[in-house]
Amino acid sequence: MGFFHFQLLKKSKKSMARLGIIRTPRGVIHTPAFMPVGTQATVKTLTPEEVSDLGAEIILSNTYHLYLRPGTEIINKAGGLHRFMNWQGPILTDSGGFQVFSLGSLRRITDDGVHFRSHLDGSPHFISPEKSMEIQAVLGSDIAMAFDVCAPFPCSYEEALEAVERTTRWAERSLKAPHAPGQVVFGIVQGSVYPELRERSAREITALDFPGYAVGGLSVGEPKVIMYEVLEKTTPLLPEDRPRYLMGVGTADCLWEGVARGVDLFDCVLPTRIARNGTALTSKGKVVVRNAEFADDFSPIDADCGCYTCRNYSRAYLRHLFKAEEILGHRLLTIHNLYFTLGVMAEIRQAIREDRFEEHMDEFLKQLNSTNVE
Amino acid sequence: MGFFHFQLLKKSKKSMARLGIIRTPRGVIHTPAFMPVGTQATVKTLTPEEVSDLGAEIILSNTYHLYLRPGTEIINKAGGLHRFMNWQGPILTDSGGFQVFSLGSLRRITDDGVHFRSHLDGSPHFISPEKSMEIQAVLGSDIAMAFDVCAPFPCSYEEALEAVERTTRWAERSLKAPHAPGQVVFGIVQGSVYPELRERSAREITALDFPGYAVGGLSVGEPKVIMYEVLEKTTPLLPEDRPRYLMGVGTADCLWEGVARGVDLFDCVLPTRIARNGTALTSKGKVVVRNAEFADDFSPIDADCGCYTCRNYSRAYLRHLFKAEEILGHRLLTIHNLYFTLGVMAEIRQAIREDRFEEHMDEFLKQLNSTNVE
Ligand SMILES: [Zn+2]
Ligand SMILES: [Zn+2]
Repeated sequence: MGFFHFQLLKKSKKSMARLGIIRTPRGVIHTPAFMPVGTQATVKTLTPEEVSDLGAEIILSNTYHLYLRPGTEIINKAGGLHRFMNWQGPILTDSGGFQVFSLGSLRRITDDGVHFRSHLDGSPHFISPEKSMEIQAVLGSDIAMAFDVCAPFPCSYEEALEAVERTTRWAERSLKAPHAPGQVVFGIVQGSVYPELRERSAREITALDFPGYAVGGLSVGEPKVIMYEVLEKTTPLLPEDRPRYLMGVGTADCLWEGVARGVDLFDCVLPTRIARNGTALTSKGKVVVRNAEFADDFSPIDADCGCYTCRNYSRAYLRHLFKAEEILGHRLLTIHNLYFTLGVMAEIRQAIREDRFEEHMDEFLKQLNSTNVE
Repeated sequence: MGFFHFQLLKKSKKSMARLGIIRTPRGVIHTPAFMPVGTQATVKTLTPEEVSDLGAEIILSNTYHLYLRPGTEIINKAGGLHRFMNWQGPILTDSGGFQVFSLGSLRRITDDGVHFRSHLDGSPHFISPEKSMEIQAVLGSDIAMAFDVCAPFPCSYEEALEAVERTTRWAERSLKAPHAPGQVVFGIVQGSVYPELRERSAREITALDFPGYAVGGLSVGEPKVIMYEVLEKTTPLLPEDRPRYLMGVGTADCLWEGVARGVDLFDCVLPTRIARNGTALTSKGKVVVRNAEFADDFSPIDADCGCYTCRNYSRAYLRHLFKAEEILGHRLLTIHNLYFTLGVMAEIRQAIREDRFEEHMDEFLKQLNSTNVE
């Protein structure tokens, strides 16, 4: 039935950047790859065909949100998440752990699992590693994530240590729990900013022999330099023949920096989330089309962009749509932002293929930083 | 430069139903036709290509809304409404009169025009027949509407008479005002429910020799039977060789009833407006996909519908999107509702062509009323 296979096609000689291909029962993923986020069984505003046409080969969906609404019973009756939302390609589901931990006072953690209250209606729930895998099995994602403990930033050594130990125990339980046919589970390495904890977590998690590994506990508020530093010490601890996933990261600069440190998979809500407020990502930084300065600017968001939005609509029109609260504005910016992000990813793969990743990265970051005031 | 031509292709022998074709510089319109409404320079949630692919050959846009936002200066700089919003086909613009009269206490009418305050920011404005035509010329619509006075329902004979007299004077002024190159102006017949006023209005307005005529002052709150009665006395007063437009009407039953009484053009916000609340139009009545009964209903909105939405998504998924406030739900229902409405229109044209309009209408209305509880 199912098969999952990662093939390393090429390694850069000057950095840890690598080119690969992941084969899954539902299609191949050319890595390094970016996964658009479809939190509630939809990549906001877009049809699955549009997401696919923009170049996405895999999407990410959120176990916590789908568990609460519409609930596993309905998705089970629908025949799984793919059929429910009409996305034919691979889906990666997170474990729900990150969302549950973010609930703050609404949750209580024991070694068994997490008791929490729904952010929707306050109803009480409990998710354990087994429960997370059960939900993900119903969703029928192609890649499920082990249920882990993500320590906040900053956090003490003791807190980070506890998260690492629990993450290992929960990883074992996640692996033992039943999965959907053809579904694989990725392990997650924690350890916060402490090198020896990262090393210990990597050793324990990789000992469990997952078909892929995520670097968790990053992009949780720490400065980017620290993220890069931790990342570059962690990826060498992971087996070269398994895909590596940097969770929750996906701005253009981080895509390059992550790939340079050996990452194969990324996801981030930012491109789709900021589209809602009229913010466009470009190779020269952000453009906030809502701004008054664009009221009579009839140029596209980005003259160099080949997306549907830039080929057909002006900043003035897009601004009008946002001022008038017209949904098409959100939709057109989502198209642009995903086209841009997936395009950066394609550019990265091409650069690795042509042995010019590092030079290309320098140019890209120089242009981005020359105008990006963020 | 521009040409505008209406060709009557066929007349039913048993009713006033007629088949025709309107030629405009921007494309042909097969009549009877339904015009989707793009109030704020966008047919809500859809791209122009999608609107066109759904079968629309002409859209309607609102002068009042565009005048206030983004304003004529910006649309003028954009090179007109077509270029601003990227719709290549014909556009009909209303005169703004109807919206302005609907403002109630915010407006004051004199014979010169209407003083009103913006519903957006309360700023004072004045629209006269000349001003309406000036705005519509900037918009560059293919069909502009004369600035008229729409009497409410119910209204006294005296009030209706005053509206008729003013509508005639304003029609003359609308016609004398400058228009955009290739733009034609349609006259509007008023007269409320009073046959002699309808007759007088029709006589005075047709004497001005417009290339097309609208029946105004209907669908303003009167029972449908009264609308049909007035309509059937009014259309015979209009020249056979000019297109006839029934303003603000477009539910499925009204499309058949309107065509049976000699109408060629319709517009209505309902199909796009109710999509927002999760209500779908079908040949068997309305389906409110938001309703709890559809939570685990994995059938499409309408098993007989060939639209993108019905071919790919279940009621359960659509309901989930609405419960989760996901924009894709609004979009998918807009697609379905326009496909349905434009499909009814195509069905009507086919029936006239094949000399079975009246029989087909009976069947259609029987099925619609058998289950429609509205
Ligand atoms: Zn673009
Ligand atoms: Zn449909």
